[in-house]
Amino acid sequence: MLITLITDFGYQDPFVGIMKGVIAAINPQAQIIDLTHGVPSQNVMAGALILQHSVRYFAAGTIHVVVIDPGVGGSRKPILIEHRGSYFVGPDNGVLSLALERNAPDRVIELTNADYHLQHISKTFHGRDIFAPVAAHVSLGVQLEEFGKPLENFVNLFLAPVVRGDNRLDGEIIYVDRFGNLFTNIRERDLTGLPREQLVVGLAGVPLSGLVTAYGEVSGGEFACLFNSWGLLEIALNKGNVMQHTGAKIGDKVTVTVNV
Amino acid sequence: MLITLITDFGYQDPFVGIMKGVIAAINPQAQIIDLTHGVPSQNVMAGALILQHSVRYFAAGTIHVVVIDPGVGGSRKPILIEHRGSYFVGPDNGVLSLALERNAPDRVIELTNADYHLQHISKTFHGRDIFAPVAAHVSLGVQLEEFGKPLENFVNLFLAPVVRGDNRLDGEIIYVDRFGNLFTNIRERDLTGLPREQLVVGLAGVPLSGLVTAYGEVSGGEFACLFNSWGLLEIALNKGNVMQHTGAKIGDKVTVTVNV
Amino acid sequence: MLITLITDFGYQDPFVGIMKGVIAAINPQAQIIDLTHGVPSQNVMAGALILQHSVRYFAAGTIHVVVIDPGVGGSRKPILIEHRGSYFVGPDNGVLSLALERNAPDRVIELTNADYHLQHISKTFHGRDIFAPVAAHVSLGVQLEEFGKPLENFVNLFLAPVVRGDNRLDGEIIYVDRFGNLFTNIRERDLTGLPREQLVVGLAGVPLSGLVTAYGEVSGGEFACLFNSWGLLEIALNKGNVMQHTGAKIGDKVTVTVNV
Repeated sequence: MLITLITDFGYQDPFVGIMKGVIAAINPQAQIIDLTHGVPSQNVMAGALILQHSVRYFAAGTIHVVVIDPGVGGSRKPILIEHRGSYFVGPDNGVLSLALERNAPDRVIELTNADYHLQHISKTFHGRDIFAPVAAHVSLGVQLEEFGKPLENFVNLFLAPVVRGDNRLDGEIIYVDRFGNLFTNIRERDLTGLPREQLVVGLAGVPLSGLVTAYGEVSGGEFACLFNSWGLLEIALNKGNVMQHTGAKIGDKVTVTVNV
Repeated sequence: MLITLITDFGYQDPFVGIMKGVIAAINPQAQIIDLTHGVPSQNVMAGALILQHSVRYFAAGTIHVVVIDPGVGGSRKPILIEHRGSYFVGPDNGVLSLALERNAPDRVIELTNADYHLQHISKTFHGRDIFAPVAAHVSLGVQLEEFGKPLENFVNLFLAPVVRGDNRLDGEIIYVDRFGNLFTNIRERDLTGLPREQLVVGLAGVPLSGLVTAYGEVSGGEFACLFNSWGLLEIALNKGNVMQHTGAKIGDKVTVTVNV
Repeated sequence: MLITLITDFGYQDPFVGIMKGVIAAINPQAQIIDLTHGVPSQNVMAGALILQHSVRYFAAGTIHVVVIDPGVGGSRKPILIEHRGSYFVGPDNGVLSLALERNAPDRVIELTNADYHLQHISKTFHGRDIFAPVAAHVSLGVQLEEFGKPLENFVNLFLAPVVRGDNRLDGEIIYVDRFGNLFTNIRERDLTGLPREQLVVGLAGVPLSGLVTAYGEVSGGEFACLFNSWGLLEIALNKGNVMQHTGAKIGDKVTVTVNV
């Protein structure tokens, strides 16, 4: 059984390795894949987007654990979601919600049964004390109702909507990758009905360029606006870092307009 | 059989991956967990603390390899320690010692038998040439006396002691995590007999705040002083980075005093 | 079957984890080892050197995947190389070539058979869509000719040669590791016939020191010039970072001269 991990714990401390030790002690056969531990500190939305765009590449039955948990030790609930044969474990702060793609999940359980947690529960590291042992027990086939009581409501995150105007789309930057490429909330289907060859992508009101399909279609130092591997409109810079070059940041406005 | 790795090799070079190749070539069934490779360069104390606070989460029989090794190629000995059914492999510079929690280990062996090392031993990378192959052979069940001769003395690290005065404790910062949280050498039991509700934690002589139990009990921008997942008094900043905010560093004095 | 990964994807995004999901979905038994994902962005030569100096530590039959791929989505071919019982998968931009050590490989295949790729091929992430699924299918024992058509020519990288003059060697810096140590293209055998005890290593025309065999042979703050774990002449600084200290960079000239 496969377990994936997403955290904001970084690579300097042993916190992720400790979670793996907890999992291995409960189920030595569990296979673990790191999605990333480099989520910006306490950035729940970044973790939610990473999960959303990763799950489709994992076989059904995979258990996804996400620990971006600024409210650890407080009143936010630890939860387990079952959806289309896969499992999601983490805090109820929305970090698991985008992966559902606005569908109602098959089951949501609040993790109240301490039999499946570590014996001593800290108030600062539920990744180790609750989420890792629960994931390990799910991988062993423990029935989901054993972990706690069904939960009716849970926290949903929503992305800002793309606004369709007269011959234009208004969206925004939602994610920046390690290359400094800017990912927007605009999907290819949002372009339906617009004349693709005449479209111009703009950043914070400044027109950048038309659409291409691969980074290499523009020369070094030029903007490449394309639909990327997550299916999102991305602004890149051939042989450069757009974020550093433009100073753009998450939330900045991106427009697609028709060049007349 | 499970092998964990702690190094200061970072994530830019293939040195850790090469060690894993050496292990897999000797024992393809060995399971490997990275505790961290982000230990600050040549910081033996940081590696020792990370190992100390990780081992309890791994099943007995686990083989822990630690390569923080500024003296590689010199006179420091390569060693193997057996303690309470687990194994510790690394240089004899103290990096393995804190994990023993001041207990005498069951066995210490100097790694003198070249049959269990790579054929060519460099003077710069014993992680690859000695520690990885020895760990792999331990995981295959080779008897420990095969690896070399018993060693009477080995290097022990000691943490600065917490000093108990009249209604006060004097400790210091011993570790800083990726969030900038300051870990001290003060444990919860050190507070015995002090009036917990009236205690004030101070940093370098400046009083910060009382004790809480979770980060969320204070507002954004306020100090949260609590006992953390390692059981140590930690100074954190809700939604902030204490190290950057205060300029504090390892070795700085931390006090717990009674507010009268 | 063992698969290794080298990329410049870094540790902030889930791109590497997604590749592992693709591999696990095709062959859940495949074992994966990360060589590194910290290759400087788009630095094909660094990736080639890392592969070259890692392969000898992996058992025959290992499948090495390298994704440093600035030309993704353009005309560069995706390829698979068989050489001495091991496999190399990646873009045909030279990143796989140094591992062949100037030998003709047993077989080179252009990855034209879409049956072994993901169903939807993006123009920005062939690591996920082509290289990961091909590697997974190689690990399942699919015959190599199934993946595409044999390729006669492929891109070779060449390192600058070491120039032997009268009582001197002229080389250059080819790699810098996370400690700031400078790796040169000079191998130990290049010294044949020179009086080792009288040699002086110089950087950009400035003589630094003679040769030692281990970092610890010099005092803190002194240069240690030695043949390192890759068999290359390395300039290090005991308890320091040579790159930061000297401002040296890849391509800078390194000389070995006879001190008379």
